[in-house]
Amino acid sequence: MIQYPNGTRKNASRPQQANTSRRGMTLESDINQTNESYLIYNKAVIHKKPTPIQVVHVDYPARNKAKIVEAYYRHASTTDYNGIYKGKYIDFEAKETKNRTIFPLALLHQHQIDHLRSVLQHGAIAFLIIRFTSLNETYLVYAQDIFEYISTHKSKSLPLPWIREIGTMVEETYHAPCDYLPIIDQRLKENL
Amino acid sequence: MIQYPNGTRKNASRPQQANTSRRGMTLESDINQTNESYLIYNKAVIHKKPTPIQVVHVDYPARNKAKIVEAYYRHASTTDYNGIYKGKYIDFEAKETKNRTIFPLALLHQHQIDHLRSVLQHGAIAFLIIRFTSLNETYLVYAQDIFEYISTHKSKSLPLPWIREIGTMVEETYHAPCDYLPIIDQRLKENL
Repeated sequence: MIQYPNGTRKNASRPQQANTSRRGMTLESDINQTNESYLIYNKAVIHKKPTPIQVVHVDYPARNKAKIVEAYYRHASTTDYNGIYKGKYIDFEAKETKNRTIFPLALLHQHQIDHLRSVLQHGAIAFLIIRFTSLNETYLVYAQDIFEYISTHKSKSLPLPWIREIGTMVEETYHAPCDYLPIIDQRLKENL
Repeated sequence: MIQYPNGTRKNASRPQQANTSRRGMTLESDINQTNESYLIYNKAVIHKKPTPIQVVHVDYPARNKAKIVEAYYRHASTTDYNGIYKGKYIDFEAKETKNRTIFPLALLHQHQIDHLRSVLQHGAIAFLIIRFTSLNETYLVYAQDIFEYISTHKSKSLPLPWIREIGTMVEETYHAPCDYLPIIDQRLKENL
């Protein structure tokens, strides 16, 4: 049987009502709402980066009104989220999967892997937030743990038992539907 | 006569050729090129955030090809640049002015001021890069110096002599047309 040494499953018994009421909310909107809450309560300044778009043509139907009429999505060169918490540079990517047993590494793009490696080298707190939508379980897994796994395993996915053991379950709290900062706090405390 | 105690004008005598050859390059493209160079040489990971755009309608003229046909510019809620250098969270905004004597504070938007104040509180290295295009002079001015000036003066602009004294001129180096990291190094050294 799998053990959960960090008590990471303690919210597995959260009231069913809380789960169903938020059904359909995406991880992205949960994280955005969480970051907004962190900003309002002055805990951290962490933002989602806008999607990069190449604008080709803009119309001006009225003065001071710009309407983009031709544009294309560009490839990002970083992760989606970064910012500052307790003086530390924070950088992460968020991914959802319907899979119930593994996280397919194909969901992580090469530029995201490269960027996470790069910021890690410079001293960032870098991680992935992975939500298993079918299980309604969300985990924070540090980038260095993922890179260590990748370098020692030939698998093209992260098994859920490994994520449960190495990662930490992200709790849903009143103001923060994806309250990941307490997990960072734990790490900062351990590193003191 | 104005003194330059930090020797910040030492590149005022840079070869004329270097100036004219790069005429027409914007501050933004200079900074992007600089950040790319920092990334290539593994000095720092600092990126410009994409412009936030609200996509309303997307056409699919071919499979796997998305063409945005209706979209609008949104207001940003942060500065344009952030990243990590030597373990520190870096955050800045870049502004150009044709003015030869002052930097008009109106060029700095309220959300940029709010964001800079906010990240400063959390321990960021936050600053403005200001280019006086008519003079071909570029300065790095730390956000806390600007906030101190704003709180003690009623002026709606930063005078160039004050910027020359409090800020530091940003040099153009071979790989980095707006080589601002050495100025940060100086600050990190002083804080040790």
